[in-house]
Amino acid sequence: MNKINSLRWIDGALELLDQRALPLRVDYLRYNNAADVAQGIRQLVVRGAPAIGCAAAYGVALEALRLQHQARDAFIAGLDRAMSILAASRPTAVNLFWALNRMRARLDASFDHALPAIAADLLAEAHAIADEDVRLNRAMGAHGAALLANNARVLTHCNAGALATAGHGTALGIIRSAIEAGKRIEVYADETRPFLQGARLTAWELQQDGIPVTLIADNAAGLLMHRGEIDAVIVGADRIAANGDVANKIGTYTVAVLARRHDIPFYVAAPLSTIDRATVNGEAIPIEERAAEEVLGYGGTQWAPAGVAVKNPVFDVTPADLVSALITERGALSTPDRAKIAALFDA
Amino acid sequence: MNKINSLRWIDGALELLDQRALPLRVDYLRYNNAADVAQGIRQLVVRGAPAIGCAAAYGVALEALRLQHQARDAFIAGLDRAMSILAASRPTAVNLFWALNRMRARLDASFDHALPAIAADLLAEAHAIADEDVRLNRAMGAHGAALLANNARVLTHCNAGALATAGHGTALGIIRSAIEAGKRIEVYADETRPFLQGARLTAWELQQDGIPVTLIADNAAGLLMHRGEIDAVIVGADRIAANGDVANKIGTYTVAVLARRHDIPFYVAAPLSTIDRATVNGEAIPIEERAAEEVLGYGGTQWAPAGVAVKNPVFDVTPADLVSALITERGALSTPDRAKIAALFDA
Repeated sequence: MNKINSLRWIDGALELLDQRALPLRVDYLRYNNAADVAQGIRQLVVRGAPAIGCAAAYGVALEALRLQHQARDAFIAGLDRAMSILAASRPTAVNLFWALNRMRARLDASFDHALPAIAADLLAEAHAIADEDVRLNRAMGAHGAALLANNARVLTHCNAGALATAGHGTALGIIRSAIEAGKRIEVYADETRPFLQGARLTAWELQQDGIPVTLIADNAAGLLMHRGEIDAVIVGADRIAANGDVANKIGTYTVAVLARRHDIPFYVAAPLSTIDRATVNGEAIPIEERAAEEVLGYGGTQWAPAGVAVKNPVFDVTPADLVSALITERGALSTPDRAKIAALFDA
Repeated sequence: MNKINSLRWIDGALELLDQRALPLRVDYLRYNNAADVAQGIRQLVVRGAPAIGCAAAYGVALEALRLQHQARDAFIAGLDRAMSILAASRPTAVNLFWALNRMRARLDASFDHALPAIAADLLAEAHAIADEDVRLNRAMGAHGAALLANNARVLTHCNAGALATAGHGTALGIIRSAIEAGKRIEVYADETRPFLQGARLTAWELQQDGIPVTLIADNAAGLLMHRGEIDAVIVGADRIAANGDVANKIGTYTVAVLARRHDIPFYVAAPLSTIDRATVNGEAIPIEERAAEEVLGYGGTQWAPAGVAVKNPVFDVTPADLVSALITERGALSTPDRAKIAALFDA
């Protein structure tokens, strides 16, 4: 059992830790059908590419359980609709589509069974996706931990932790694994405007584990690097193109450019399910734009003047040539490119 | 008369526009002595290097008026104390020290006069500093406007506008002058965490003048540059070293690094009084650290978890080699360096 659970299955329903309320309140919201799960994803109750994938898988399972006593046609049509609704919830993170494809494949494999058996199979598949996610994160953690020196000061952007996954985390999983291996690691967390995943989630999550963390404004990363106070950068990813370009939280590209200027290694940690071999390069990754309100203020408080125009793209693309290594469950891939990534899948 | 006045002299007292309350409230606070002005500077009621200089000059004048009927010894001791208190209010912006030196020189020149005459002279000097600031900003505006193409999309960081000066502004003054010259200019304003000068002040100030402005999270600047949506960057400065290194609001260095990567011109607009020839390079500029509360949340609302460590340096240094041109009242100095800056003062 993890200390922090972004999602959990309890008494036949999915519960999502409401990440909008963190760190002020630790609330779990309960979900019984796919449309509500899709809304939870859209509203950022759950976020982080791997966690979104897990939530979507459970969304399909919930719908199957809900419809298992209906006619077969209605059941299949309902699952199709559920998958469409879930697929439309957020555009950038590819794990969402990967998880839905896995659920579709399991549905196809179970197609001849009775509906309750199909529903049970789909729930088992969702559990498998979540369990596997934690296992992969632990594998990634071991590979990545080897890259961190004792006493390393690691900058991270956004939250690629237990809260962004089914447990352990990708970027923060590497930090956890390094600490479990006996290293002392200090984390700098970019606050990550506009949604403040760093200030609210990464800071809180690391505090829960007693890992030393210092919060900074996103603007301060350059000065800290210039002063020699950052030894490595580790971030997660929402989608990695076939050539190694990385879509991740807005501002990640800036951190990568700064890291390159200061010769600081810039690591990306993500499972293979985050690599989208159908996306040729970063230019082809859809970048979600969210509401102006996120930039005008925070959580109901507005500090910008009324009526001002806003642009709020919430992801950006870091070109592969700025990535020192891509850390997956299969190991650390230095200076990733199209050929190396293709080879990773054939391994 | 400017439309926006960061400071004004009314009925024998200094009034400062409370920039902590903008844009929600337009409140002027009234000051009658130097210690209160110093506190206003420290608390960011007034901010922006030139405006701080003007406020400090008025602080000295207020003290002289307050003490003009005391004994000469008490008067001089009081002014000395006032200048010390004002000098200790904020460490980075050099215009503060420049303005105090000017007031000290005026005091020395008037030393033999009766105290009320000295006080009148000091008030005249404070008015002269403020009037001159607006004139210099207009000169800078004309020089800088020539560098902007029609339809230019200009990114700015923090607020180097009328609110940061006695009027017209440095960086925003160039934009105003370009528009007065008939050009169409679109501004992107970085929100500028943690104190949100971009979201609160630049957005509001440009709205007052009907200048098109789009607010973005600091994290979005890299993506916009990558997409080709930024044609130039203009920022102000808090102190410029003798070699051209520029201390300015935290995050400015990041914007400069991004601009260089995308071959976008990066302009710094500042009067000669911002150049500190006694500071050999950027490493010698003191960088103010402010309270953790500024990063933990905003305006009394805290969103970060209690007890998390914070680093809050509020300025950084952009090395001269990232500056495309330094725009002063004497013209635009391309690729500034020690020799060119020295020559500027001899011109």
